[in-house]
Amino acid sequence: MENKVPVGISAHHIHLSKADFNALFPNQEDLTHFKDLSQPGQYAAVEKLDVVSLDPKGKTISGVRILGPLRPESQVELMRSECTKCKIVGPVRSSGDTKGSGAVKLVNPLNGCEVILEEGVIVADRHIHFSLEDAAKFGVVDRQTVSVKVEGRKGGIMNEVLCRVSSKFALDFHIDVDDASAFDLKQGDLVEIVL
Amino acid sequence: MENKVPVGISAHHIHLSKADFNALFPNQEDLTHFKDLSQPGQYAAVEKLDVVSLDPKGKTISGVRILGPLRPESQVELMRSECTKCKIVGPVRSSGDTKGSGAVKLVNPLNGCEVILEEGVIVADRHIHFSLEDAAKFGVVDRQTVSVKVEGRKGGIMNEVLCRVSSKFALDFHIDVDDASAFDLKQGDLVEIVL
Repeated sequence: MENKVPVGISAHHIHLSKADFNALFPNQEDLTHFKDLSQPGQYAAVEKLDVVSLDPKGKTISGVRILGPLRPESQVELMRSECTKCKIVGPVRSSGDTKGSGAVKLVNPLNGCEVILEEGVIVADRHIHFSLEDAAKFGVVDRQTVSVKVEGRKGGIMNEVLCRVSSKFALDFHIDVDDASAFDLKQGDLVEIVL
Repeated sequence: MENKVPVGISAHHIHLSKADFNALFPNQEDLTHFKDLSQPGQYAAVEKLDVVSLDPKGKTISGVRILGPLRPESQVELMRSECTKCKIVGPVRSSGDTKGSGAVKLVNPLNGCEVILEEGVIVADRHIHFSLEDAAKFGVVDRQTVSVKVEGRKGGIMNEVLCRVSSKFALDFHIDVDDASAFDLKQGDLVEIVL
Protein backbone atom coordinates (compact mmCIF):
# COMPACT_ATOMS: atom_id res chain seq x y z
CA MET A 1 0.00 0.00 0.00
CA GLU A 2 3.08 2.24 0.32
CA ASN A 3 2.93 3.75 -3.16
CA LYS A 4 -0.81 3.54 -3.79
CA VAL A 5 -3.07 6.52 -4.49
CA PRO A 6 -6.89 6.65 -4.63
CA VAL A 7 -8.58 7.36 -7.96
CA GLY A 8 -10.85 10.40 -8.26
CA ILE A 9 -12.89 10.51 -11.47
CA SER A 10 -13.74 13.95 -12.88
CA ALA A 11 -16.77 14.45 -15.07
CA HIS A 12 -16.75 17.38 -17.49
CA HIS A 13 -17.12 20.68 -15.67
CA ILE A 14 -16.75 24.45 -15.92
CA HIS A 15 -14.80 27.02 -13.89
CA LEU A 16 -15.97 30.63 -14.33
CA SER A 17 -14.29 33.99 -13.94
CA LYS A 18 -16.23 36.67 -12.06
CA ALA A 19 -16.80 38.60 -15.31
CA ASP A 20 -18.20 35.58 -17.15
CA PHE A 21 -20.29 34.63 -14.11
CA ASN A 22 -21.79 38.12 -14.03
CA ALA A 23 -22.63 37.94 -17.75
CA LEU A 24 -24.31 34.55 -17.41
CA PHE A 25 -26.03 35.11 -14.03
CA PRO A 26 -26.82 38.86 -13.96
CA ASN A 27 -29.19 38.50 -11.00
CA GLN A 28 -26.89 36.51 -8.67
CA GLU A 29 -24.10 37.47 -6.33
CA ASP A 30 -22.26 34.15 -6.46
CA LEU A 31 -22.56 30.44 -7.28
CA THR A 32 -24.89 28.32 -5.13
CA HIS A 33 -23.13 25.61 -3.10
CA PHE A 34 -24.30 22.09 -3.98
CA LYS A 35 -21.67 19.82 -2.41
CA ASP A 36 -18.02 19.78 -1.37
CA LEU A 37 -15.37 18.11 -3.54
CA SER A 38 -12.35 16.09 -2.44
CA GLN A 39 -9.98 19.08 -2.66
CA PRO A 40 -10.43 21.44 0.33
CA GLY A 41 -12.46 24.59 -0.50
CA GLN A 42 -13.63 23.31 -3.91
CA TYR A 43 -17.34 22.64 -4.44
CA ALA A 44 -19.85 21.61 -7.04
CA ALA A 45 -22.37 24.38 -7.68
CA VAL A 46 -26.08 24.00 -8.32
CA GLU A 47 -25.70 25.97 -11.57
CA LYS A 48 -25.16 24.29 -14.95
CA LEU A 49 -24.51 25.63 -18.45
CA ASP A 50 -24.82 24.39 -22.01
CA VAL A 51 -21.51 24.14 -23.87
CA VAL A 52 -22.13 24.95 -27.54
CA SER A 53 -19.68 24.02 -30.30
CA LEU A 54 -18.65 26.89 -32.59
CA ASP A 55 -18.30 24.42 -35.50
CA PRO A 56 -21.22 24.70 -37.96
CA LYS A 57 -21.59 20.90 -37.81
CA GLY A 58 -20.92 20.73 -34.07
CA LYS A 59 -23.17 19.67 -31.23
CA THR A 60 -24.07 21.01 -27.79
CA ILE A 61 -23.24 19.41 -24.46
CA SER A 62 -26.18 20.22 -22.21
CA GLY A 63 -26.14 20.74 -18.47
CA VAL A 64 -22.45 20.89 -17.64
CA ARG A 65 -21.97 21.62 -13.95
CA ILE A 66 -20.03 24.65 -12.72
CA LEU A 67 -17.47 24.14 -9.95
CA GLY A 68 -16.71 26.84 -7.39
CA PRO A 69 -15.23 29.05 -6.19
CA LEU A 70 -14.92 31.54 -9.07
CA ARG A 71 -11.41 31.76 -10.59
CA PRO A 72 -9.27 34.39 -12.34
CA GLU A 73 -9.99 32.77 -15.73
CA SER A 74 -12.85 30.68 -17.10
CA GLN A 75 -11.96 27.11 -18.05
CA VAL A 76 -14.06 24.30 -19.56
CA GLU A 77 -12.77 20.78 -18.94
CA LEU A 78 -14.19 18.25 -21.41
CA MET A 79 -13.33 14.69 -22.36
CA ARG A 80 -11.69 13.72 -25.64
CA SER A 81 -14.72 11.55 -26.50
CA GLU A 82 -17.15 14.47 -26.34
CA CYS A 83 -14.77 16.90 -28.08
CA THR A 84 -14.66 14.44 -30.99
CA LYS A 85 -18.42 13.88 -30.97
CA CYS A 86 -19.36 17.56 -30.68
CA LYS A 87 -16.55 19.00 -32.85
CA ILE A 88 -14.95 21.09 -30.12
CA VAL A 89 -11.20 21.75 -30.04
CA GLY A 90 -9.73 20.66 -26.71
CA PRO A 91 -5.97 20.21 -26.34
CA VAL A 92 -4.61 18.15 -23.45
CA ARG A 93 -3.47 20.73 -20.89
CA SER A 94 -2.87 21.21 -17.19
CA SER A 95 -5.48 23.24 -15.35
CA GLY A 96 -4.77 26.96 -15.81
CA ASP A 97 -2.70 26.47 -18.99
CA THR A 98 -5.38 27.72 -21.36
CA LYS A 99 -3.47 30.04 -23.70
CA GLY A 100 -4.43 29.12 -27.28
CA SER A 101 -6.75 26.34 -26.11
CA GLY A 102 -10.24 25.69 -27.54
CA ALA A 103 -13.11 28.15 -28.03
CA VAL A 104 -16.77 27.56 -27.24
CA LYS A 105 -20.03 29.32 -26.44
CA LEU A 106 -21.49 29.04 -22.93
CA VAL A 107 -25.25 29.41 -22.57
CA ASN A 108 -27.31 29.66 -19.39
CA PRO A 109 -30.40 27.64 -20.38
CA LEU A 110 -32.53 29.34 -17.67
CA ASN A 111 -32.16 32.92 -18.92
CA GLY A 112 -30.60 32.64 -22.39
CA CYS A 113 -27.51 34.64 -21.41
CA GLU A 114 -24.43 33.78 -23.47
CA VAL A 115 -20.66 34.17 -23.32
CA ILE A 116 -18.17 33.32 -26.06
CA LEU A 117 -14.93 31.93 -24.63
CA GLU A 118 -12.16 32.66 -27.15
CA GLU A 119 -10.00 30.16 -25.29
CA GLY A 120 -10.31 28.02 -22.18
CA VAL A 121 -11.50 24.62 -23.42
CA ILE A 122 -9.09 21.83 -22.45
CA VAL A 123 -8.96 18.08 -21.94
CA ALA A 124 -7.39 17.98 -18.46
CA ASP A 125 -4.15 16.08 -18.12
CA ARG A 126 -3.92 13.17 -15.69
CA HIS A 127 -2.64 14.57 -12.40
CA ILE A 128 -2.14 13.70 -8.76
CA HIS A 129 -2.80 16.09 -5.86
CA PHE A 130 -0.38 15.68 -2.95
CA SER A 131 -0.33 17.36 0.43
CA LEU A 132 3.18 18.39 1.53
CA GLU A 133 3.31 15.33 3.80
CA ASP A 134 2.22 12.93 1.06
CA ALA A 135 4.71 14.42 -1.42
CA ALA A 136 7.53 13.83 1.07
CA LYS A 137 6.30 10.28 1.70
CA PHE A 138 6.15 9.44 -2.03
CA GLY A 139 9.36 11.33 -2.80
CA VAL A 140 7.86 13.61 -5.47
CA VAL A 141 8.13 17.35 -6.09
CA ASP A 142 5.66 19.83 -7.57
CA ARG A 143 5.30 19.55 -11.40
CA GLN A 144 7.23 16.27 -11.62
CA THR A 145 5.64 13.74 -13.98
CA VAL A 146 5.22 10.09 -13.00
CA SER A 147 3.49 7.02 -14.40
CA VAL A 148 0.62 5.12 -12.82
CA LYS A 149 0.17 1.37 -13.10
CA VAL A 150 -3.27 -0.26 -13.23
CA GLU A 151 -3.96 -4.01 -12.85
CA GLY A 152 -6.73 -6.05 -14.51
CA ARG A 153 -8.10 -7.06 -17.92
CA LYS A 154 -8.08 -3.40 -18.99
CA GLY A 155 -4.85 -2.70 -17.12
CA GLY A 156 -1.72 -0.91 -18.24
CA ILE A 157 0.23 2.22 -17.55
CA MET A 158 -0.75 5.88 -17.78
CA ASN A 159 2.22 8.12 -18.57
CA GLU A 160 2.58 11.90 -18.28
CA VAL A 161 0.83 12.11 -14.92
CA LEU A 162 1.56 15.52 -13.40
CA CYS A 163 2.28 15.80 -9.66
CA ARG A 164 0.83 18.89 -7.97
CA VAL A 165 1.96 19.57 -4.41
CA SER A 166 0.30 22.05 -2.08
CA SER A 167 -0.61 22.41 1.57
CA LYS A 168 -4.18 22.91 0.28
CA PHE A 169 -4.34 19.51 -1.47
CA ALA A 170 -5.50 16.06 -0.38
CA LEU A 171 -4.05 12.88 -1.96
CA ASP A 172 -6.05 12.10 -5.11
CA PHE A 173 -5.25 10.79 -8.62
CA HIS A 174 -7.49 12.77 -10.96
CA ILE A 175 -8.52 11.21 -14.25
CA ASP A 176 -11.53 11.81 -16.45
CA VAL A 177 -14.30 9.40 -17.40
CA ASP A 178 -12.53 8.39 -20.64
CA ASP A 179 -9.47 7.22 -18.71
CA ALA A 180 -11.57 5.58 -15.99
CA SER A 181 -13.58 3.63 -18.59
CA ALA A 182 -10.53 2.57 -20.61
CA PHE A 183 -8.77 1.24 -17.50
CA ASP A 184 -11.97 -0.02 -15.84
CA LEU A 185 -11.38 2.10 -12.75
CA LYS A 186 -13.95 3.21 -10.19
CA GLN A 187 -13.91 6.09 -7.74
CA GLY A 188 -11.66 5.23 -4.78
CA ASP A 189 -9.80 2.36 -6.47
CA LEU A 190 -6.14 2.24 -5.42
CA VAL A 191 -3.45 2.40 -8.12
CA GLU A 192 0.32 2.36 -8.02
CA ILE A 193 2.69 5.28 -8.70
CA VAL A 194 5.73 4.31 -10.79
CA LEU A 195 8.56 6.83 -10.37
CA MET B 1 8.15 0.81 -38.30
CA GLU B 2 9.08 -2.87 -37.78
CA ASN B 3 6.83 -3.51 -34.79
CA LYS B 4 4.07 -0.97 -35.50
CA VAL B 5 0.40 -1.84 -36.01
CA PRO B 6 -2.44 0.37 -37.24
CA VAL B 7 -5.25 1.26 -34.83
CA GLY B 8 -8.82 0.28 -35.73
CA ILE B 9 -11.47 1.83 -33.48
CA SER B 10 -14.65 -0.17 -32.89
CA ALA B 11 -17.88 1.56 -31.99
CA HIS B 12 -20.50 -0.44 -30.10
CA HIS B 13 -22.14 -3.05 -32.33
CA ILE B 14 -24.24 -6.20 -32.43
CA HIS B 15 -23.71 -9.66 -33.95
CA LEU B 16 -26.88 -11.73 -34.39
CA SER B 17 -27.59 -15.46 -34.57
CA LYS B 18 -29.95 -16.61 -37.33
CA ALA B 19 -32.67 -17.37 -34.75
CA ASP B 20 -32.47 -13.92 -33.16
CA PHE B 21 -32.31 -12.30 -36.61
CA ASN B 22 -35.49 -14.14 -37.63
CA ALA B 23 -37.28 -13.03 -34.45
CA LEU B 24 -36.29 -9.37 -34.95
CA PHE B 25 -36.67 -9.20 -38.75
CA PRO B 26 -39.48 -11.67 -39.56
CA ASN B 27 -39.93 -10.34 -43.11
CA GLN B 28 -36.27 -10.44 -44.19
CA GLU B 29 -34.03 -13.20 -45.49
CA ASP B 30 -30.75 -11.67 -44.33
CA LEU B 31 -29.00 -8.49 -43.23
CA THR B 32 -28.62 -5.68 -45.77
CA HIS B 33 -25.01 -4.88 -46.71
CA PHE B 34 -24.02 -1.28 -45.87
CA LYS B 35 -20.21 -1.28 -46.12
CA ASP B 36 -17.23 -3.60 -45.79
CA LEU B 37 -15.09 -3.63 -42.64
CA SER B 38 -11.32 -4.02 -42.36
CA GLN B 39 -11.52 -7.77 -41.69
CA PRO B 40 -12.22 -9.73 -44.92
CA GLY B 41 -15.86 -10.84 -45.25
CA GLN B 42 -17.12 -8.72 -42.34
CA TYR B 43 -19.54 -5.87 -43.08
CA ALA B 44 -21.64 -3.21 -41.40
CA ALA B 45 -25.34 -3.79 -42.04
CA VAL B 46 -27.97 -1.15 -42.71
CA GLU B 47 -30.03 -2.51 -39.79
CA LYS B 48 -29.81 -1.10 -36.26
CA LEU B 49 -31.38 -2.11 -32.95
CA ASP B 50 -32.10 -0.51 -29.60
CA VAL B 51 -30.24 -2.08 -26.67
CA VAL B 52 -32.48 -1.88 -23.59
CA SER B 53 -31.11 -2.30 -20.06
CA LEU B 54 -32.94 -4.89 -17.92
CA ASP B 55 -32.21 -2.81 -14.80
CA PRO B 56 -35.32 -0.92 -13.57
CA LYS B 57 -33.21 2.26 -13.36
CA GLY B 58 -31.33 1.51 -16.58
CA LYS B 59 -31.28 3.36 -19.88
CA THR B 60 -31.54 2.44 -23.55
CA ILE B 61 -28.79 2.75 -26.15
CA SER B 62 -30.61 3.61 -29.37
CA GLY B 63 -29.58 2.74 -32.91
CA VAL B 64 -26.75 0.27 -32.38
CA ARG B 65 -25.57 -1.06 -35.74
CA ILE B 66 -25.58 -4.79 -36.57
CA LEU B 67 -22.47 -6.28 -38.18
CA GLY B 68 -22.69 -9.15 -40.64
CA PRO B 69 -22.55 -11.96 -41.48
CA LEU B 70 -24.85 -13.76 -39.00
CA ARG B 71 -23.01 -15.85 -36.40
CA PRO B 72 -23.69 -19.00 -34.35
CA GLU B 73 -24.41 -16.86 -31.25
CA SER B 74 -25.65 -13.31 -30.73
CA GLN B 75 -23.20 -10.92 -29.09
CA VAL B 76 -23.52 -7.26 -28.09
CA GLU B 77 -20.25 -5.35 -27.77
CA LEU B 78 -20.59 -2.21 -25.67
CA MET B 79 -18.15 0.18 -24.05
CA ARG B 80 -17.54 0.35 -20.30
CA SER B 81 -18.68 4.00 -20.30
CA GLU B 82 -22.13 3.17 -21.68
CA CYS B 83 -22.52 0.05 -19.51
CA THR B 84 -21.96 2.26 -16.48
CA LYS B 85 -24.29 4.99 -17.74
CA CYS B 86 -27.10 2.62 -18.80
CA LYS B 87 -26.73 0.07 -15.96
CA ILE B 88 -25.91 -2.89 -18.20
CA VAL B 89 -23.61 -5.70 -17.04
CA GLY B 90 -20.72 -6.14 -19.49
CA PRO B 91 -17.64 -8.11 -18.45
CA VAL B 92 -14.42 -7.68 -20.41
CA ARG B 93 -14.27 -10.72 -22.69
CA SER B 94 -12.85 -11.93 -25.98
CA SER B 95 -15.29 -12.16 -28.86
CA GLY B 96 -17.19 -15.47 -28.64
CA ASP B 97 -16.54 -15.93 -24.90
CA THR B 98 -20.04 -14.99 -23.80
CA LYS B 99 -20.90 -17.67 -21.22
CA GLY B 100 -22.27 -15.92 -18.13
CA SER B 101 -21.83 -12.47 -19.70
CA GLY B 102 -24.43 -9.67 -19.51
CA ALA B 103 -28.13 -9.79 -20.35
CA VAL B 104 -30.10 -7.21 -22.30
CA LYS B 105 -33.23 -6.72 -24.43
CA LEU B 106 -32.85 -6.05 -28.15
CA VAL B 107 -35.66 -4.11 -29.85
CA ASN B 108 -36.18 -3.46 -33.55
CA PRO B 109 -37.49 0.13 -33.48
CA LEU B 110 -39.09 -0.26 -36.94
CA ASN B 111 -41.45 -3.15 -36.09
CA GLY B 112 -41.37 -3.42 -32.27
CA CYS B 113 -40.04 -7.01 -32.35
CA GLU B 114 -38.03 -7.92 -29.25
CA VAL B 115 -35.53 -10.54 -28.12
CA ILE B 116 -34.19 -11.04 -24.60
CA LEU B 117 -30.54 -12.09 -24.62
CA GLU B 118 -29.91 -14.04 -21.40
CA GLU B 119 -26.18 -13.61 -22.05
CA GLY B 120 -24.03 -12.12 -24.81
CA VAL B 121 -23.24 -8.58 -23.63
CA ILE B 122 -19.49 -7.97 -23.34
CA VAL B 123 -16.94 -5.19 -23.32
CA ALA B 124 -14.55 -6.47 -25.98
CA ASP B 125 -10.96 -7.04 -24.93
CA ARG B 126 -8.18 -5.18 -26.72
CA HIS B 127 -6.97 -7.46 -29.51
CA ILE B 128 -4.81 -7.54 -32.62
CA HIS B 129 -5.71 -9.37 -35.82
CA PHE B 130 -2.72 -10.88 -37.63
CA SER B 131 -2.51 -12.66 -40.96
CA LEU B 132 -0.25 -15.75 -40.88
CA GLU B 133 2.48 -13.68 -42.57
CA ASP B 134 2.21 -10.79 -40.11
CA ALA B 135 2.22 -13.18 -37.12
CA ALA B 136 5.46 -14.74 -38.37
CA LYS B 137 6.95 -11.29 -38.96
CA PHE B 138 6.05 -10.07 -35.45
CA GLY B 139 6.92 -13.40 -33.82
CA VAL B 140 3.54 -13.94 -32.15
CA VAL B 141 1.23 -16.97 -31.95
CA ASP B 142 -2.55 -17.21 -31.74
CA ARG B 143 -3.99 -16.31 -28.28
CA GLN B 144 -0.69 -14.87 -27.00
CA THR B 145 -1.11 -11.63 -25.05
CA VAL B 146 1.14 -8.64 -25.65
CA SER B 147 1.29 -5.01 -24.57
CA VAL B 148 0.96 -1.98 -26.80
CA LYS B 149 2.82 1.29 -26.24
CA VAL B 150 1.32 4.67 -27.12
CA GLU B 151 3.24 7.98 -27.25
CA GLY B 152 1.91 11.44 -26.43
CA ARG B 153 0.38 13.52 -23.63
CA LYS B 154 -2.21 10.77 -23.07
CA GLY B 155 0.32 8.02 -23.77
CA GLY B 156 1.08 4.86 -21.86
CA ILE B 157 0.80 1.12 -22.20
CA MET B 158 -2.21 -1.11 -22.78
CA ASN B 159 -1.74 -4.57 -21.29
CA GLU B 160 -3.67 -7.81 -21.90
CA VAL B 161 -3.87 -7.32 -25.65
CA LEU B 162 -4.89 -10.63 -27.22
CA CYS B 163 -3.25 -11.74 -30.48
CA ARG B 164 -5.55 -13.51 -32.94
CA VAL B 165 -3.91 -15.16 -35.94
CA SER B 166 -5.80 -16.40 -39.01
CA SER B 167 -5.39 -16.59 -42.74
CA LYS B 168 -8.68 -14.65 -42.86
CA PHE B 169 -7.34 -11.67 -40.87
CA ALA B 170 -5.70 -8.38 -41.84
CA LEU B 171 -3.29 -6.58 -39.49
CA ASP B 172 -5.34 -4.37 -37.17
CA PHE B 173 -5.20 -3.37 -33.47
CA HIS B 174 -8.82 -3.27 -32.34
CA ILE B 175 -9.75 -1.02 -29.45
CA ASP B 176 -13.04 0.61 -28.53
CA VAL B 177 -13.89 4.30 -28.33
CA ASP B 178 -13.14 4.43 -24.57
CA ASP B 179 -9.56 3.24 -25.15
CA ALA B 180 -9.11 5.46 -28.21
CA SER B 181 -10.26 8.53 -26.26
CA ALA B 182 -8.15 7.77 -23.17
CA PHE B 183 -4.99 7.36 -25.27
CA ASP B 184 -5.92 10.08 -27.78
CA LEU B 185 -5.71 7.68 -30.73
CA LYS B 186 -7.31 8.05 -34.14
CA GLN B 187 -8.19 5.46 -36.75
CA GLY B 188 -5.04 4.38 -38.59
CA ASP B 189 -2.55 5.73 -36.02
CA LEU B 190 0.49 3.48 -35.69
CA VAL B 191 1.37 2.06 -32.26
CA GLU B 192 4.12 -0.23 -31.03
CA ILE B 193 3.77 -3.86 -29.93
CA VAL B 194 5.82 -4.70 -26.81
CA LEU B 195 6.44 -8.45 -26.52
